Amino acid sequence: MTSTHPFDKALKIHHSDIRVGHFTGMTSPDYWNMVGPFGGTTAALALQAVMQHPDVLGTPIALTVNYAAAIEAGAFDIQATAVRTNRSTQHWTVQITQAGASGAPSMTTTATVVTAARRETWGESDMPMPESPRPETVDRMSIGPSGVAWINQYEMRPFSGGIPSKWDGSQHHSETRIWLRDAQPRPLDFASLAAMSDMFYPRVWLRRAKHVPAGTVSITTYFHVGPEQLAEVGTGYLLGRAAGQQFFNGFFDQTAHLWSEKGVLLATSNQIVYYKE
Amino acid sequence: MTSTHPFDKALKIHHSDIRVGHFTGMTSPDYWNMVGPFGGTTAALALQAVMQHPDVLGTPIALTVNYAAAIEAGAFDIQATAVRTNRSTQHWTVQITQAGASGAPSMTTTATVVTAARRETWGESDMPMPESPRPETVDRMSIGPSGVAWINQYEMRPFSGGIPSKWDGSQHHSETRIWLRDAQPRPLDFASLAAMSDMFYPRVWLRRAKHVPAGTVSITTYFHVGPEQLAEVGTGYLLGRAAGQQFFNGFFDQTAHLWSEKGVLLATSNQIVYYKE
Repeated sequence: MTSTHPFDKALKIHHSDIRVGHFTGMTSPDYWNMVGPFGGTTAALALQAVMQHPDVLGTPIALTVNYAAAIEAGAFDIQATAVRTNRSTQHWTVQITQAGASGAPSMTTTATVVTAARRETWGESDMPMPESPRPETVDRMSIGPSGVAWINQYEMRPFSGGIPSKWDGSQHHSETRIWLRDAQPRPLDFASLAAMSDMFYPRVWLRRAKHVPAGTVSITTYFHVGPEQLAEVGTGYLLGRAAGQQFFNGFFDQTAHLWSEKGVLLATSNQIVYYKE
Repeated sequence: MTSTHPFDKALKIHHSDIRVGHFTGMTSPDYWNMVGPFGGTTAALALQAVMQHPDVLGTPIALTVNYAAAIEAGAFDIQATAVRTNRSTQHWTVQITQAGASGAPSMTTTATVVTAARRETWGESDMPMPESPRPETVDRMSIGPSGVAWINQYEMRPFSGGIPSKWDGSQHHSETRIWLRDAQPRPLDFASLAAMSDMFYPRVWLRRAKHVPAGTVSITTYFHVGPEQLAEVGTGYLLGRAAGQQFFNGFFDQTAHLWSEKGVLLATSNQIVYYKE
């Protein structure tokens, strides 16, 4: 008997018998971040609700997740609603809520998802994979006594722009390049791709070698694969690249790209992040 | 008496007296695209409803607009709802509907908006403005007999990656660099910045020198300015840069950046675009 992968446990949601598109779930201690769940898991859950909806059309194309409030440890509700179904595309809104102190639902997360029945077309890339050493030749990031559980769920091998060794306030470019995959092997799927798109720590820490408070406010991920391309990756490494763009008065954006080891650009992602000071 | 700017006419919406956050408006012939309004105007309208909402907190940080269905010429309804208000950030959902054939509202557009009360912090850029000739030295794009009204509303001076002169199916990189501003001078604001973020024609046309059917499915724009930075730009030129990233089975994404003439990165934007063949 094989045990359930921690990510599959974290994504386990139950569809209501009486309310279409309504799911319930529990936060996962395995993917806990400092003051709430790892945002990548939350993004994956929003996507998961759409993909498990009985009316879903096709596969995910775009996912935007807005982190409106911290999710507390415990139960949550997800409502996924197909607001428009066209011939080959479908538009979804998703809301994650938790029962508040008064018992009334408290909004923690909003999301929109676009799914589509893809057709085979001409294709090309204008964003080639950066040059990189082989994953096996790069040291695995050691996990410090940070108490941040989710980081242990991934095998991270940064070869450029790793977490600063000295928090000395020195200035650096905010780019990271890294090999990554699930620490416990798990074949790549849309949910894990959504989560991995959010695994780059706040660029402001790298930029300033300073550990200021920071948190993602909104993330948008585009998927450039179908089931066949995911299957080709399987449990292999992804090459991740992330960089900050503009840092201004409390918010900065960072852009991220994830390629397969063979050089296929699987997902592109952008997020806007709150920071202090 | 000065006449109202076409963009202000296009953005004119009326707030309901009885239903908070409900607005009505009319599509603008001045910003008509081929089969519906210019998507930039639609994005600006979603933002406008939030900014005119009596409960709005701060200024726009992030805007995601999903184009679920073409908007038809005529009246539309916008509902803007503050789903979560925190101490310094606010999360919004927006829906644009039109009365369908049956009279029931038909969903055309969903959006999410984040606004925030910014505080002064450290700031920097990791995305410098590309080298460019002075705007006056670049020829203004001539408007062909395309029948596409919205293009006439902008002064576009591409100095790299202009619209292909020959649709011969040859392969090119999908990057465009362009100076741009409103054809009829209008001081930059959040709404026009949202619209201009969508003014880069589909990268697949440039990439393939082929005029395949294409249309934006979802756009996300991050704003990196406050009122002071907008006022500094005024009616000046913006430098725009856009490039495609991944083209795969019917969808590609393109990334866009808009700098002020002085080199301040004002907005970063990404969109995913449907294409045929």
